[in-house]
Amino acid sequence: MLLTANTQTPLCRKSLMATDRIIRYSVIEVEPDYLDEYLPLALEVGDISMRTEPGVLAMYPTVSKEDSCKITIMEIYASQDAYKSHIASPHFQKYKQGTFHMVKSLQLLDQNPLNPDMYISSGIIPKEE
Amino acid sequence: MLLTANTQTPLCRKSLMATDRIIRYSVIEVEPDYLDEYLPLALEVGDISMRTEPGVLAMYPTVSKEDSCKITIMEIYASQDAYKSHIASPHFQKYKQGTFHMVKSLQLLDQNPLNPDMYISSGIIPKEE
Repeated sequence: MLLTANTQTPLCRKSLMATDRIIRYSVIEVEPDYLDEYLPLALEVGDISMRTEPGVLAMYPTVSKEDSCKITIMEIYASQDAYKSHIASPHFQKYKQGTFHMVKSLQLLDQNPLNPDMYISSGIIPKEE
Repeated sequence: MLLTANTQTPLCRKSLMATDRIIRYSVIEVEPDYLDEYLPLALEVGDISMRTEPGVLAMYPTVSKEDSCKITIMEIYASQDAYKSHIASPHFQKYKQGTFHMVKSLQLLDQNPLNPDMYISSGIIPKEE
């Protein structure tokens, strides 16, 4: 499958947040036997989504210090349409189909910000040539 | 108690992240009877911490769409010392002592970033005069 970014691809210009934006924590429990295989695929889909999708405003995956099989991804999509476009993308489909058998549980925890004056954003640290 | 910031206080200059930084999700379940009282106190402590503490690199509270008593705060402290300074601050102590009886459960979920090339940050949208 063709991928559309590598570590030299700069971060794309991002969309403005619409009223139907999605602020979500995805909490994933990975089957321990598949953890080593799963992690690079999760890293890749986050990396490509941030670099190439204007509507992916944040996508920040972390691994629990207490349980390395528990992954939390902080995700912000600019709109419902941005989310639809994300899940239809070749990189998300590669991740989803490639990891389906590795995932023991998945929770999608949608959120509202408590403080409307605050924002959060994620990005990629530029690499020198 | 004197508070050290208001909505006109600009965001302070932030510290660099040290190797002993803390990346954490605090997940708080609030007693339903106290929710209306709890939320402004949680908003206030996040707001003051972001505006005034150089070592508080992110503090982003959200409310679950499914259960309005479930609050998640994305927190990043630049170092262990920055965290110690935060919990010793008058605004954190006001929050902690003022909300102790309102909190049904508290989980501190420490994380490692999956992708070392990514960052996440939160901030406050500046207000016009």
